Amino acid sequence: MYLETINSPADVKKLSLEQLPVLAEEMRHALLLRASRHGGHFGPNFGMVEATIALHYVFDSPKDKIIFDVSHQSYPHKMLTGRKDAYLYPEHYDDVSGYSNPRESEHDFFTVGHTSTSVSLACGMAKARDLKGERGNVIAVIGDGSLSGGEALEALDFAAELHGNFIIVVNDNDMSIAENHGGLYQNLKLLRETRGQAECNFFRAMGLDYVFVGDGNDTSELISAFRRVKDSMHPVVVHICTLKGKGYAPAEQHKEEWHYCAPFDIETGKPLYEDDSEDYSSVTADYLLKKMQQDKSVVAITSATPTVLGFTADKRAEAGPQFVDVGIAEENAVALASGIAANGGKPVYGVYSTFVQRTFDQVSQDLCINNSPATIVTFWGSVYGMNDVTHLGLQDIPMLSNIPNLVYLAPTTKEEYLAMLDWSIEQTEHPVAIKLPGGPMISDGRQVTKDFGRLNRYEVTQQGSRVAVIGLGTFYGLGRQAAALIAEHIGVQPTVINPYYITGLDEALLEELKREHEVVITLEDGILDGGFGEKIARFYGASAIKTLNYGLKKEFLDRYDVDEVLRENHLTAEQIAADVVALL
Amino acid sequence: MYLETINSPADVKKLSLEQLPVLAEEMRHALLLRASRHGGHFGPNFGMVEATIALHYVFDSPKDKIIFDVSHQSYPHKMLTGRKDAYLYPEHYDDVSGYSNPRESEHDFFTVGHTSTSVSLACGMAKARDLKGERGNVIAVIGDGSLSGGEALEALDFAAELHGNFIIVVNDNDMSIAENHGGLYQNLKLLRETRGQAECNFFRAMGLDYVFVGDGNDTSELISAFRRVKDSMHPVVVHICTLKGKGYAPAEQHKEEWHYCAPFDIETGKPLYEDDSEDYSSVTADYLLKKMQQDKSVVAITSATPTVLGFTADKRAEAGPQFVDVGIAEENAVALASGIAANGGKPVYGVYSTFVQRTFDQVSQDLCINNSPATIVTFWGSVYGMNDVTHLGLQDIPMLSNIPNLVYLAPTTKEEYLAMLDWSIEQTEHPVAIKLPGGPMISDGRQVTKDFGRLNRYEVTQQGSRVAVIGLGTFYGLGRQAAALIAEHIGVQPTVINPYYITGLDEALLEELKREHEVVITLEDGILDGGFGEKIARFYGASAIKTLNYGLKKEFLDRYDVDEVLRENHLTAEQIAADVVALL
Repeated sequence: MYLETINSPADVKKLSLEQLPVLAEEMRHALLLRASRHGGHFGPNFGMVEATIALHYVFDSPKDKIIFDVSHQSYPHKMLTGRKDAYLYPEHYDDVSGYSNPRESEHDFFTVGHTSTSVSLACGMAKARDLKGERGNVIAVIGDGSLSGGEALEALDFAAELHGNFIIVVNDNDMSIAENHGGLYQNLKLLRETRGQAECNFFRAMGLDYVFVGDGNDTSELISAFRRVKDSMHPVVVHICTLKGKGYAPAEQHKEEWHYCAPFDIETGKPLYEDDSEDYSSVTADYLLKKMQQDKSVVAITSATPTVLGFTADKRAEAGPQFVDVGIAEENAVALASGIAANGGKPVYGVYSTFVQRTFDQVSQDLCINNSPATIVTFWGSVYGMNDVTHLGLQDIPMLSNIPNLVYLAPTTKEEYLAMLDWSIEQTEHPVAIKLPGGPMISDGRQVTKDFGRLNRYEVTQQGSRVAVIGLGTFYGLGRQAAALIAEHIGVQPTVINPYYITGLDEALLEELKREHEVVITLEDGILDGGFGEKIARFYGASAIKTLNYGLKKEFLDRYDVDEVLRENHLTAEQIAADVVALL
Repeated sequence: MYLETINSPADVKKLSLEQLPVLAEEMRHALLLRASRHGGHFGPNFGMVEATIALHYVFDSPKDKIIFDVSHQSYPHKMLTGRKDAYLYPEHYDDVSGYSNPRESEHDFFTVGHTSTSVSLACGMAKARDLKGERGNVIAVIGDGSLSGGEALEALDFAAELHGNFIIVVNDNDMSIAENHGGLYQNLKLLRETRGQAECNFFRAMGLDYVFVGDGNDTSELISAFRRVKDSMHPVVVHICTLKGKGYAPAEQHKEEWHYCAPFDIETGKPLYEDDSEDYSSVTADYLLKKMQQDKSVVAITSATPTVLGFTADKRAEAGPQFVDVGIAEENAVALASGIAANGGKPVYGVYSTFVQRTFDQVSQDLCINNSPATIVTFWGSVYGMNDVTHLGLQDIPMLSNIPNLVYLAPTTKEEYLAMLDWSIEQTEHPVAIKLPGGPMISDGRQVTKDFGRLNRYEVTQQGSRVAVIGLGTFYGLGRQAAALIAEHIGVQPTVINPYYITGLDEALLEELKREHEVVITLEDGILDGGFGEKIARFYGASAIKTLNYGLKKEFLDRYDVDEVLRENHLTAEQIAADVVALL
């Protein structure tokens, strides 16, 4: 097996042109086995095997620097840069992260996991090279889906200003995570159909030179194109057409489903563990589809991740023009929602917590200054969410909750969520965001009659004294548990509060607590800095009330064990109870 | 005078084609007089007079909806939509804001002041119209400079997905605030030179139909183009070529200087009040130019506002390739800086506080996860900064300071700033941001020898007891004043602390304060929510120390009086002293 002999790109270069397709097959086989047992990004990696071989055959990494966008497609690169064991041997599967990672290899330059950043980062590498008077190729590798992101488009425009070597490999598999959206994809189609000959060329219109590779899964064709641009002294795009999921029939046929996979049976392509239980995604889609039928002005918006909103292809078809996928373009999603709301529509934008960060200015300026009554739902903003450092959902409270005018709500159950969502869609006064709780969805069947339009009214769910526990969102249940333990210890029932509102204090209630309480504790599912608890601490700063804030430390966690992180942050009921008892 | 008779767009329509250029001259005359006395955006408005007349001549606002990007160019629109008095009569000059404003008129749909938002917002208006089955034109008006912003590019891509009427007027005056940067401007040049005939067309490559207007200051030509696209049932770009500053010779010749103006003498174009005193902008440029000579890897970056960094055209020429203007593209600026730093360069990105908001995800992902040692300097992040609701600098502490790994510093003097800047440029461990103080620059000549690499070490500048005053950045001086008043009242000198670090607590010092102090107060120049003081309140939450946090309430202020806002937020030395004395 060639792959077993590849310890660095130098070993790739030792192979003959004829041996490279064999290497590609070996790599695909290893990728398939690993994916079937371990899960991970599938389609992007299968499409990029040949291009990665060709890159390392032609260029001299790490002197030449290859920067992978989003790095969903970096597994083949890892296999060829000293990390093959993590793809060949199950006991080493977890030796590597799912993204490019400078701690793993000198061939990785950035820890990357959000899309559309590669061209910009690579422009910086090239600029530093030029300032220092050094040489070498700088190569950004970006998928067609990532091109629609503002950061990528800004950088494509800027790239033409570089006066030295700069190569952008556009990996065009005619797919984002789901299908592509946007006019620029009409141009990519035209370029594919004319084999790059069309005069109207998006990349040339951005001031860049352009090379077309029709079969981006043909190592020879790729190598000849890369040799043509190697050491060129101006910015150039190499547009390669690849097949997402190439080499595994189910993935070639069902590209969206096979963007990412959980462990599966290779014969059938069926996942090993199926979970058809209701979750916040399916609940959201079911609710919205019903709502859409009753009201044609209700519209769901996604930025290239429709299934987080529960909108699988069939449900998107059902929603018709009432479902909008803007592509990877979170800024446009929020501003679009503001425009829709300002003109009497009822938009709901569903987005992963980790990606809502891409829209701070749009939330502040386009949405909140204008008080447009749009709804944002943040998914997976939780310590129980994705745990790669680039995909943490621990920042949305400090990011969103300090923006004026926004009403940011934290439900603790399905019933509370749907009541909030319905209220938000029907009201016309406020921009609203809803932070879905992490962990398994809780449904208690309780009818929620609360009027969320009376802002910042917390709910006392258990009246007690001495200690008050304010448990936000995910951690409301943990708060109840801690309260029960505290009661056991001190013989007095603590007060328990579901605050609902992240963006405002119930000052009357907090004031009232002063009478019968000595300690107020807060719990929130996110970093403490800039978060919810600190606002309570500020409120009580000049009073006799003592406060303890529970949440996560400000740090970039990576591939963590949830229970360990919870313990380290004193986020178990036992630890909390012990802290409180010690303080009393 | 025709202008005096124009109370709504209907009155514009009553004029003959021949009368329109006369109206344009009257409008320009009024604009000139007002600008000379009142200041404001100059060049963009002078260039857009004819196009605005033509828009209101052809379309039916407010049924047809015109959305102005950044709205630097919205004065002519205001003149024709019932607000002429604010341009004709000095006593009414302040009746209108400098930006589009729905509170002023039904012809304004959004409060806008950041660039690159119009296409997205207008897409939303069009989408809502289509969902509701309504009719009418939706028109986004965007300048060439704003096209480079990610939000605009995302929306241009998305616009092609709209299936109904949608018109994008691209006002191409071949200028951003300074000159344009980026490859797309080569294409605009090609389109101008070929009178829109070039096959390679950026807008067509984005899937949009395209109409070219060679003289965008000719009402007849404009009217005929607008009539052509009115009620069209697909997205179309009308590319109009205008002259920035048209009609006033100094502004036509010096377009960058005349983007915005302070009151000036019409005869000479000279400002009425000259201020050549040193400020943080000039100090920054002087320092960086010297540094650049010593070290070729030092590079200053701006996103289209070079003068905030002090880099006037002559200084940009002096810096050569060590000065980079990325155009309006804040996301690219931060990621570029990260790339430069990762490859051994020493980048300094200078940006207004209000625009740093556009880069949350880049600061978090591209910069801080990667710990790239780049420097960001935030200007005008202060209650003393710009006071339009869209340009507030009161949010940068909550936005930046809660991102892990970032070291955010708050100097109080020129000397502290330069010491921090020098440290930041030379160190290789941390991403660093520096928050410049507001108000007049303080220079005390003190040599700053502090090692900023020993993170989160605050400085006790006055040792006292009972009360400790932690005065951050701008408000350090206010803290000293308050401390002096408190000493008068209680006969004991408070401790005064310059914390320097916004992003971390000096826990040893804070712990130490517990021994001899009862009250710790914090002062910060920004909104309190998610800010610096709350972290101190959290730290002391479980202790006997009482805390008071001073800063601004979370709200969108607009065109405020600084002294009034300070008073309302208890930010005078007298109020603070009174609060503290009452608490003791």
